[in-house]
Amino acid sequence: MEALEAILTRRSTRNYKSDPVEDGLLNQILDAARQAPSGGNSQNNHFLVIRNREVLDRLIAMTEEAFAKMEVTGVTYASLKNSILASKKGGYVFCYNAPLMIVVANRRDYGNNFADCACAIENMMIAANALDLGSCWINQLRWLNENPALVPYLQSLGMEENERVYGAVIIGYPAEGLPNRKRMPQKGNVVTMID
Amino acid sequence: MEALEAILTRRSTRNYKSDPVEDGLLNQILDAARQAPSGGNSQNNHFLVIRNREVLDRLIAMTEEAFAKMEVTGVTYASLKNSILASKKGGYVFCYNAPLMIVVANRRDYGNNFADCACAIENMMIAANALDLGSCWINQLRWLNENPALVPYLQSLGMEENERVYGAVIIGYPAEGLPNRKRMPQKGNVVTMID
Repeated sequence: MEALEAILTRRSTRNYKSDPVEDGLLNQILDAARQAPSGGNSQNNHFLVIRNREVLDRLIAMTEEAFAKMEVTGVTYASLKNSILASKKGGYVFCYNAPLMIVVANRRDYGNNFADCACAIENMMIAANALDLGSCWINQLRWLNENPALVPYLQSLGMEENERVYGAVIIGYPAEGLPNRKRMPQKGNVVTMID
Repeated sequence: MEALEAILTRRSTRNYKSDPVEDGLLNQILDAARQAPSGGNSQNNHFLVIRNREVLDRLIAMTEEAFAKMEVTGVTYASLKNSILASKKGGYVFCYNAPLMIVVANRRDYGNNFADCACAIENMMIAANALDLGSCWINQLRWLNENPALVPYLQSLGMEENERVYGAVIIGYPAEGLPNRKRMPQKGNVVTMID
């Protein structure tokens, strides 16, 4: 697929087949992630590539538990508010049961951690679209990136002491077969020309 | 150009011809930027598209003045330290004299501002590469995004009261003709497989 087409038709997929993403495709996606730019070419991203169902289920249970303990008072960000309310209700699955989640950690004391992580995730989502895979940005582990239960669990999976989660992406085969590629209607993203 | 090739061969360009980027190419790049994902599909990015040479020169002078007043003591981030030292010396041009800079502002009180801005910039850099243009991420206006001289100047260009700069990108024709597309050697970006 052409680069511009892959960029313009990338949309979020929230319903997946349980089929795993093959190594060949995953490796192309990770290659795209690792070639993302980074501040001062520091290459501090750390990709935790999770296809293990037990680990994914454990993270689903842990995030629900963490959100259920939080209060929505003062929370202005709608998606976070929804995560808290859904977790209090029970049965909340933050990662839409995708068969693959790539959690992106970076150094906690590095000022460009959030941006570097975002560039790598955007690369992965464009690559996934070009490979006929669906994807979706996942923010919940970033919102919980100082959670006293999740930090040690992620460390047990390989995250370093000085790292925290700044984003994640789920990838898999869309339940509908091919990804939704309809153009995103624009309601904001204002452009101001200064010629 | 194929999507994966455009992602894998995107590199930073720091030496540009003075030739302007034509409207047709710029519009494709802005289209790519506006289709980037955003938290809760909020579409809060605001793109200040600067091709006006006087405005670019004014920003160059203002950033140099701002950095020259800063001290390097306690600054651990090498690129910021270099900007300060180069500005104290004089003649510092933070945007490599590219003919086009797209400054990305976003809401100051919105938790995903930095990530949304980064995704849009990554889209623009991949699109630029696919169109045989060079590009480079520019962080200096983000480092100075509460500067008392730059904030009002950017507001005079169209930035809203509740917005701040979270990143910028320069784009233009590489002095060498085509962009450098050599693969980026990997020194970090660790991958941990959890299967």
